[in-house]
Amino acid sequence: MMTIQDIKSLLEQFFHPVELVGDGGVVITGPAKIEDAGSGQVSFVANEKYYRFLGDAKASLLIVHLDAPVGDGSDGRSFLKVKDPYTAFVFVLQKFAGERRIAAPGVAASASVAPTARLGRNVSIGEHAVIGERCTIGDDTVIGPNTVLMHDVKIGNGCVLYPQVTCYDGTVIGDRVIVHSGTVIGADGFGFAPQKDGSYIKIPQMGTVQIEDDVEIGANTTIDRATMGKTVVCKGAKIDNLVQIAHNCRIGEDTVIASQAGISGSVKIGRQCLIGGQAGFAGHLEIADRTSIAAKAGISKSFTEPGLAIRGVPAQPMRDQLRQEAQIRGLGALKEKVDELEARIKAILEGRGA
Amino acid sequence: MMTIQDIKSLLEQFFHPVELVGDGGVVITGPAKIEDAGSGQVSFVANEKYYRFLGDAKASLLIVHLDAPVGDGSDGRSFLKVKDPYTAFVFVLQKFAGERRIAAPGVAASASVAPTARLGRNVSIGEHAVIGERCTIGDDTVIGPNTVLMHDVKIGNGCVLYPQVTCYDGTVIGDRVIVHSGTVIGADGFGFAPQKDGSYIKIPQMGTVQIEDDVEIGANTTIDRATMGKTVVCKGAKIDNLVQIAHNCRIGEDTVIASQAGISGSVKIGRQCLIGGQAGFAGHLEIADRTSIAAKAGISKSFTEPGLAIRGVPAQPMRDQLRQEAQIRGLGALKEKVDELEARIKAILEGRGA
Amino acid sequence: MMTIQDIKSLLEQFFHPVELVGDGGVVITGPAKIEDAGSGQVSFVANEKYYRFLGDAKASLLIVHLDAPVGDGSDGRSFLKVKDPYTAFVFVLQKFAGERRIAAPGVAASASVAPTARLGRNVSIGEHAVIGERCTIGDDTVIGPNTVLMHDVKIGNGCVLYPQVTCYDGTVIGDRVIVHSGTVIGADGFGFAPQKDGSYIKIPQMGTVQIEDDVEIGANTTIDRATMGKTVVCKGAKIDNLVQIAHNCRIGEDTVIASQAGISGSVKIGRQCLIGGQAGFAGHLEIADRTSIAAKAGISKSFTEPGLAIRGVPAQPMRDQLRQEAQIRGLGALKEKVDELEARIKAILEGRGA
Repeated sequence: MMTIQDIKSLLEQFFHPVELVGDGGVVITGPAKIEDAGSGQVSFVANEKYYRFLGDAKASLLIVHLDAPVGDGSDGRSFLKVKDPYTAFVFVLQKFAGERRIAAPGVAASASVAPTARLGRNVSIGEHAVIGERCTIGDDTVIGPNTVLMHDVKIGNGCVLYPQVTCYDGTVIGDRVIVHSGTVIGADGFGFAPQKDGSYIKIPQMGTVQIEDDVEIGANTTIDRATMGKTVVCKGAKIDNLVQIAHNCRIGEDTVIASQAGISGSVKIGRQCLIGGQAGFAGHLEIADRTSIAAKAGISKSFTEPGLAIRGVPAQPMRDQLRQEAQIRGLGALKEKVDELEARIKAILEGRGA
Repeated sequence: MMTIQDIKSLLEQFFHPVELVGDGGVVITGPAKIEDAGSGQVSFVANEKYYRFLGDAKASLLIVHLDAPVGDGSDGRSFLKVKDPYTAFVFVLQKFAGERRIAAPGVAASASVAPTARLGRNVSIGEHAVIGERCTIGDDTVIGPNTVLMHDVKIGNGCVLYPQVTCYDGTVIGDRVIVHSGTVIGADGFGFAPQKDGSYIKIPQMGTVQIEDDVEIGANTTIDRATMGKTVVCKGAKIDNLVQIAHNCRIGEDTVIASQAGISGSVKIGRQCLIGGQAGFAGHLEIADRTSIAAKAGISKSFTEPGLAIRGVPAQPMRDQLRQEAQIRGLGALKEKVDELEARIKAILEGRGA
Repeated sequence: MMTIQDIKSLLEQFFHPVELVGDGGVVITGPAKIEDAGSGQVSFVANEKYYRFLGDAKASLLIVHLDAPVGDGSDGRSFLKVKDPYTAFVFVLQKFAGERRIAAPGVAASASVAPTARLGRNVSIGEHAVIGERCTIGDDTVIGPNTVLMHDVKIGNGCVLYPQVTCYDGTVIGDRVIVHSGTVIGADGFGFAPQKDGSYIKIPQMGTVQIEDDVEIGANTTIDRATMGKTVVCKGAKIDNLVQIAHNCRIGEDTVIASQAGISGSVKIGRQCLIGGQAGFAGHLEIADRTSIAAKAGISKSFTEPGLAIRGVPAQPMRDQLRQEAQIRGLGALKEKVDELEARIKAILEGRGA
């Protein structure tokens, strides 16, 4: 049970100042979206354009910006004013989020743990999980039910692998990594040598996958092992559901990839990029740091200037693409104008002027 | 073993009239596509444009429209004439479909069922399935092998979860819901608060997923839990394979979503919509009832008029998009015309007329 | 441990001639990419445009084309010259690829094998795998941990099913087939009969899936069973991750399908086609042999001429599509020209000439 004063103290660990308007003694039972929040609940407004919701909000506590135009608390609602209300609300959510129990502490009786595997302290291994030969699992890591680690997988400290994840042999995962259900890490890269008769010989995929610290990977995503060397997802990257990352890719630090994007083999993506849903990349490209790629873009060449926004199929800088889209929307008008010019020329030739 | 007369009786439960042409005593052993069907088999023709196949069809029984131009049965083939032959054939298929055994009755010895879980009557739990604390499973529901329900999952009556499904904690599923293998319901929404140094803080995903009655969900689809509140798939919706439904979406009743479509966070889709394969939606949009969205469309704004057909990237009403596509196909002709006008003007200026 | 002479002997099983330049007695410890390879390692150069890397390469052995401009081996590096260095290197990779252990020989104690299932010689069944009633598994086949075969599944000789694969009842798989984790074969086709009230009746999916010899299927792919009859993936086809193949499709021999492509129901694709990532097909189309389809293409009609390259949305022959893309890029110039013509006409009418 938390009072508004307790929440103020929590936020003071992260922000200065934290200004309270209203009664700090009110008990807060949980968070809610601003349109749903009622008495006893906390919500937030981070953006000026939502200030209009402040009047009608029924929450007992609202977290707002230092400059937000709030009252004096006399209507029974309280406010906590901070520099970054969005992040402040995230800290409040973390406080209220119930513990999610993915697997009971220790090794479930039905799990299969190879005798050569090494487990750290306070590890949880769920029912029917399979931990292969020579795997190592760091302290405080949770392996969900029915998750399979093939042999020689290394997982760091404080990780969570949800149920039904698969890590192929040799996968290396850092600390505090989260992997959601159904995701497959380290399956073979898609490599075949064409033969004269039209058939293919499989190219052995001898490399591995390395996932660095603080990465989160969504559900049913696939990250293929390298042909030789490593496929790397760098520290802090966030990858959504149903994403394809092919062999030998490198995804930069703190880069965010939305659902159903597909990255072909050997693509190198820089740091702090934003990649929209269903975007697709041809193979062997380089994308500079802080590139922002629109949803559904088809990237067919490298973009090496940092900080560009790109869009379209084939993708080009946002300004060029938006201009082109406007030109296409203007095609009807252009055609009319050409018809009109044709009529005028005809009139000139017929001596009628126009 | 069914005779044509038995099939007539079956269809009379659903249609009036059901007219028999030919011999009702013939035994029918199973259904087949019209081009494959042979003696002893039943097939159907629902559409006038396939009437031309009627002559050559080898099936012993054909289900056709009341108005279909069929013979008198003297060639040994029989006909059942009904108002909706397609649906009638579906009822026949249901009769012939063998029982699919997903899990043996009762709880498999190798399944893990938490002591606080409550199972209804006639429940089947497959090998190595995991049923978490405080789950409830309704009467006649089948949970396939290796499927995992985390804690506090509620599943209604008459559901089928195929092997390898994952339901995260708090998922609520109605009655008669079918979920195919590899699908993940309730994984975390993709929400992160950006920090000044370019890194991200995870936003706790405290909401849940609610799947209403009579929904069917294909294989390897992902439906994320809400950040706060619920992601909802309404009664009767049908969702294909590899579809992404993000946090806080609402999919309306009887809406159909084809494979690999991606719905971003907080999108609200109306009732009886049809969404084509690989279509993608930006976040926070509203789509009106009975909207029809073409495959590969990229929906970047709300469409609030019911019953529209939309298409393209960015998507626009079908008529506008088709006109635009025609204008693009006409670009070569437009360019030629402009070149010709340029030549005429040059001729005028040179005093040659044209 | 292999010497260069051993590698020469290996390659002579496949190529004539194999020419050695340099010292055949050097021991080779493993393969590497040309830019990473160091002393004791083998790499290759297959393409003239990479000949510039030959000078700086640190590998002890390079496999190159018969015509490659290499030295005399006096700098301590050796060369093996063959007609197809790329395929030759694949054979070397196969030699060095470590054995991947997916499941221990025999049937794991925790696996569930139905009493009516029949296993060939030298079969491995992993932990917690489930083999349903009347399944047959051929000699030397490996079934990974947590993989589920429902009833009546037939799998040939020398196959590998990685962990967490699901095969629905009736699936038939040939010899030497590889299926990666998370893939679902034989789930219900997406078929529903619309009713007057806007709801749908499920069409029973009574067909099966047949995967022929030498097919490889990536991770988290879905291949649906036929409504009636069979969905077929023909001999030697290679299918990447997250691909959707709908009910009643036929994928031709040695056809390659890249990640996230989606094939709608009843599409027939010919032999030796190449299908790019995120391409999508409308239902009931036919695609001729050796068709090459660009990434992200949207195929809305059949292409029955063999060997075409097609691209775009809607897809058209490559030449037409590239011309159209050039016309779109030229729209700004076209608009400027029209404006200029308008000014000239105005000048003519004002009697100023131009």
